[in-house]
Amino acid sequence: MSAETIRGKQSISFREAPHIVSRASIVGKKEGEGPLGNLFDRVEEDPMLGQASWEEAESALQKQAARLAMEKAGPGVPPVRYLFSGDLLGQLIATSFGVMDLKLPLFGLYGACSTIGEALMLGAMTVQGGYSDAVLALTSSHFGSAEKQFRFPLAYGNQRPLSATWTVTGSGAFVLAHSGGKARVTGATPGRVVDYGLKDSMNMGACMAPAACDTICAHLEDFGRTPQDYDYIITGDLGSVGQTLLLELAGKRGFDLEGRHLDCGMLIFDSKAQDTHAGGSGCACSAVTLASYILPKIESGEWRRVLFVPTGALLSTVSYNEGQSVPGIAHAVVIEYC
Amino acid sequence: MSAETIRGKQSISFREAPHIVSRASIVGKKEGEGPLGNLFDRVEEDPMLGQASWEEAESALQKQAARLAMEKAGPGVPPVRYLFSGDLLGQLIATSFGVMDLKLPLFGLYGACSTIGEALMLGAMTVQGGYSDAVLALTSSHFGSAEKQFRFPLAYGNQRPLSATWTVTGSGAFVLAHSGGKARVTGATPGRVVDYGLKDSMNMGACMAPAACDTICAHLEDFGRTPQDYDYIITGDLGSVGQTLLLELAGKRGFDLEGRHLDCGMLIFDSKAQDTHAGGSGCACSAVTLASYILPKIESGEWRRVLFVPTGALLSTVSYNEGQSVPGIAHAVVIEYC
Repeated sequence: MSAETIRGKQSISFREAPHIVSRASIVGKKEGEGPLGNLFDRVEEDPMLGQASWEEAESALQKQAARLAMEKAGPGVPPVRYLFSGDLLGQLIATSFGVMDLKLPLFGLYGACSTIGEALMLGAMTVQGGYSDAVLALTSSHFGSAEKQFRFPLAYGNQRPLSATWTVTGSGAFVLAHSGGKARVTGATPGRVVDYGLKDSMNMGACMAPAACDTICAHLEDFGRTPQDYDYIITGDLGSVGQTLLLELAGKRGFDLEGRHLDCGMLIFDSKAQDTHAGGSGCACSAVTLASYILPKIESGEWRRVLFVPTGALLSTVSYNEGQSVPGIAHAVVIEYC
Repeated sequence: MSAETIRGKQSISFREAPHIVSRASIVGKKEGEGPLGNLFDRVEEDPMLGQASWEEAESALQKQAARLAMEKAGPGVPPVRYLFSGDLLGQLIATSFGVMDLKLPLFGLYGACSTIGEALMLGAMTVQGGYSDAVLALTSSHFGSAEKQFRFPLAYGNQRPLSATWTVTGSGAFVLAHSGGKARVTGATPGRVVDYGLKDSMNMGACMAPAACDTICAHLEDFGRTPQDYDYIITGDLGSVGQTLLLELAGKRGFDLEGRHLDCGMLIFDSKAQDTHAGGSGCACSAVTLASYILPKIESGEWRRVLFVPTGALLSTVSYNEGQSVPGIAHAVVIEYC
């Protein structure tokens, strides 16, 4: 048995920690104009990527990011055997149509905007478990396809409350393998569905903060660590509203995250200059921020250990219109310099 | 390294094959009136299960099946640590709202009607990998919520072509652990997305048959076996139209499945008497047939080895209305008597 699970609890500690051997980030124009603009592998000026629909454009992003990550892994890394991928759209159509040409066995995942966390965890479990020497973790989101799926036709020019977030257009891809590169996945805490009964789909940060708190606290308790054992604890897309709530909720559980917390949604856009309100969101938000900003800091040794916690809001227009609440989920992955 | 992967190919052979230690099947009234009616654990006469919507009814099915499977596992089985579940609805709302009260870490999955295959594979990988002593694999579908999601309001009384299938109302749940019970998962072949360009969402059997063929042939080639090495190769929900195509396509690849192939969609309904046309479909179709009909035959030793191949049609109303094709995916799991 090569894995060390933390018994009776939620977490996994990887004894032979899989390495993140390559990473790719492809984003849209608006993301390219944001604070991380220079760090992305590729910025696509055309939001349609030459395709006929938003959904096909998102599929094109996935295909490009997957190919780039495998290309960057180079010939020293074994061939990718399995693909872990998902997106926000109903029945994962961005994924199904995006990855078809790769001809890789696919584990389709849905964790809303936490999907890349789920993909990295399952990918690491697969590599350490000996089921594949290399796997690909992949996800995407697109502003146009997400607005169409969840909100209003773009042509309405609908106004958005200040608690709303802006779906990131992009795709992030990562190759995991036994060795190579300077960052590895040393632990994971898969999250539970947490529902505080909030019903505002325009305030997803507040809906997800309790789930982020649940997973982060479970993680710290399982590993017997404090926030100070991490350079940063980095959530996916809580935005500014969700961050305030997370700090308060974690404080009540006895964990002071002040000064240790970052949020990809707050890093990716300049919310005032770019008019993105509470911040960025979408599966790509945490994935491209990990690929472009977080991993380079770990690989250079500037950061030694990060808790990466993508967060997801679990809703559909059907559940929302039927008056259901918006529960959250968050998956935590420990990434360390090596 | 405890897993034996078949290098350069698609499959996994489990050296310490995880056992399916319990199984639960809960279905609706129509399924209860079908040929397997007496074999299900529970038949719900009320299609709403006392809930306010089809979606909440489906969530209730998941919750009941999950609880029943864990109850049936009994005190000798370690507590379930992780849950692998998904459903057909956009953003997996049947799952999110169904499993919340279980308070288990959730890996949300989407493989359309192949989801239980994906859940069983990942569950077996998790148990053998030492990440958990017991996991739960779960899925559901509901005729009402699926028609609302994919087709027409029920009140229209819309006519259906003879190639159409009938979404099974139900939920199937399975506990996997290191030991216990008389059936185990000895191998797996995760499937790829396969697209023959068919565009008829009312003929999903034809859309999925190429994927079923791709996975079954890859499996047989990887393991160096013939169809005769299995008592049966049992697909999820190809129905009668898809079966004909599968036999033809597999024949062209050199594998004669004649007399060795069964399909859960053809087993679960009496298509003439119950007016279900080509057969049953939906995530629950293969899951409840496995729980009620296939596993008992394996556990009794009547069947020694089965290749269980749930099949999924990858479409959403968005992709369909935008003129996209309906690709398929199929995940194969080897289940053996022990």
